[in-house]
Amino acid sequence: MKIVCLQENIKEALFILERISSKNQELPILNSILLKTENGLLKGIATDLEFGIEVEIPAKVEKQGEIVVPVKLLSQFIGNLPNIKIKLEEKDGVLTIDAENIKTTIPTLPKNEFPLIPKVKKEHSVHIQSGILKKALDQVVNSAAVSYSIPEIAGVLFRFNEDTAKIVATDSFRLSEKKLYQKNTYTTSEKHAFIIPLKTAVELGRIITHDDEMMELYTDKNQIVFILPHIHFISRLITGDYPNYEQIIPTSSKTKITIQKAEFISKIKLASVFASKINDIKIVVDAGKNEIHIHAAEQSKGQFQSTVVTDITGENGEAVFNYKYLLDGLMNIQEEEVVFEMNGAALPAIIKSKNDSYQYVVMPIKT
Amino acid sequence: MKIVCLQENIKEALFILERISSKNQELPILNSILLKTENGLLKGIATDLEFGIEVEIPAKVEKQGEIVVPVKLLSQFIGNLPNIKIKLEEKDGVLTIDAENIKTTIPTLPKNEFPLIPKVKKEHSVHIQSGILKKALDQVVNSAAVSYSIPEIAGVLFRFNEDTAKIVATDSFRLSEKKLYQKNTYTTSEKHAFIIPLKTAVELGRIITHDDEMMELYTDKNQIVFILPHIHFISRLITGDYPNYEQIIPTSSKTKITIQKAEFISKIKLASVFASKINDIKIVVDAGKNEIHIHAAEQSKGQFQSTVVTDITGENGEAVFNYKYLLDGLMNIQEEEVVFEMNGAALPAIIKSKNDSYQYVVMPIKT
Repeated sequence: MKIVCLQENIKEALFILERISSKNQELPILNSILLKTENGLLKGIATDLEFGIEVEIPAKVEKQGEIVVPVKLLSQFIGNLPNIKIKLEEKDGVLTIDAENIKTTIPTLPKNEFPLIPKVKKEHSVHIQSGILKKALDQVVNSAAVSYSIPEIAGVLFRFNEDTAKIVATDSFRLSEKKLYQKNTYTTSEKHAFIIPLKTAVELGRIITHDDEMMELYTDKNQIVFILPHIHFISRLITGDYPNYEQIIPTSSKTKITIQKAEFISKIKLASVFASKINDIKIVVDAGKNEIHIHAAEQSKGQFQSTVVTDITGENGEAVFNYKYLLDGLMNIQEEEVVFEMNGAALPAIIKSKNDSYQYVVMPIKT
Repeated sequence: MKIVCLQENIKEALFILERISSKNQELPILNSILLKTENGLLKGIATDLEFGIEVEIPAKVEKQGEIVVPVKLLSQFIGNLPNIKIKLEEKDGVLTIDAENIKTTIPTLPKNEFPLIPKVKKEHSVHIQSGILKKALDQVVNSAAVSYSIPEIAGVLFRFNEDTAKIVATDSFRLSEKKLYQKNTYTTSEKHAFIIPLKTAVELGRIITHDDEMMELYTDKNQIVFILPHIHFISRLITGDYPNYEQIIPTSSKTKITIQKAEFISKIKLASVFASKINDIKIVVDAGKNEIHIHAAEQSKGQFQSTVVTDITGENGEAVFNYKYLLDGLMNIQEEEVVFEMNGAALPAIIKSKNDSYQYVVMPIKT
């Protein structure tokens, strides 16, 4: 193999490839990447067995070939070079890199040990704009379960119907649901649903760096491919049935509070200083006075109370919440004003914006 | 006690006090601060027993008094408030804080358990501009020993003579020496020397936030006070004799290299990727060609070689260095051009700038 490319181009690709490649010390081949020429192009391939990626790197191919090299070393070295032309040439198992007055040689690894990234059959296909998918992921990922005790919820559910798509995550204490309407946002061949692992969802959010690219994603029973210009990102799917979450979303509410998001966040953060180990803060609504009172107390710390005058309809009420869950929900909303719907001390509350198709359902802490 | 102050003023003081106060979980009284009124002023006092601080906080004192309160809680809470007027009032062992529509109560701790910060006798005194002291500390602290196996070098030596002051740190592998000339930089009553702990030196660098303040520092046998406007910072001194370091500083050099600092740093960083576990890189000087060659190699990583054409006088030579030590020394120099003096494979090299009173002595790795 012999290629010439610009430092900037290969650096960006190595940055993504390094993140995808495994940090597993017991399988050093997974800490490597496959660089191969294909149809006059250079491709970088990395996998950690749960997901894999293929990145096209603009380069001038002078001699076809493929090599396996340690990704961290290569990325550190090339990342520190200035943006100059660099030559990569493999001979007898050694990669030589020439860049102006710098010359390095790096031993390559056995090609046949590098794991193949499995092919995915195109059983279902969706086209969606990158910015829309990225925003939807950003709004739901912090609600997904981090532990694997219920494997289905350690992921993000995608459900595509003829006219609406729903993107959902929950850890059973709170739930995020984002709706997309087909018109102008996505096209799908037919109705279908799948669950991607949380790690895949987080990585996908990082891989999407431009908002205006048309993406295709297609699935078979066990796997999914996300196709961006120059990038193929392949992941396993979580098999199993997602919980029937819709039944727990309240369809009406007892108390409806409209409040400035920034002020609500700031008061919850202040209260959080006085919360106990279970992160509890209490919200008491005085509908008659249009006031909410935020309380927190812990014997060794002291007591906190703050009043916010705002717009309230419905009944008085109070409930105790994990302040971290409230903050997570509020952070997922981009508008300046939020709607906070409460249903007393035992039933779920909802955080949403007036004009968005996103809702965040949060269970009170039972006291 | 009853005082009124602006959030911004007390926030800044709490930020410093929190850093000084101990994180020792076994002595919770050290995680607290003493707030006391004195001559119509509010003072915040913190200590971790090795050093202590007194900070004046602009405030309107309505009722004299003193209280001990947990500093992290107070700092988190007040730090999150907007910049508004806040009222602090103590009654029956409880501190009440009022800030617009927010009210908190915090239990105070027993005053008599808070450790006294010892008084320092003014046996020797120096006046110095804050910016000069801060810059000198910045240039030497990364050379001090982090471990306490030789207690004297786990600190920074200050030696004030009639016409010159020297500020020195070493961990026995490298040594930083900064010279100040009395004219325009400091005034001292007489010749004296002392060693401040590394932790004190690092904290002092953080406490000095303005470059143009006149500071006084005075010492007795065991302690030192640094006096800044509104701040008294008190620390123990390290007793014992500082090693006689001057004898190891080479007085002449075999090879003298003048080189652009940025290029030298960049090439050393590239080489470091290929260094072995002992961080070794080799520098080979070809005086005839005005070239230095930087080498690094480790079997599993590969080999690196880079050439820099620069200005060289003296003999050819080569030596192996810990790249981290070279980078530390280069970072301590502010000028764009540095002088690197080598003395073969076994004797110390020196990094300095042409027009600065700072030198960094570094031992080669013996191979």
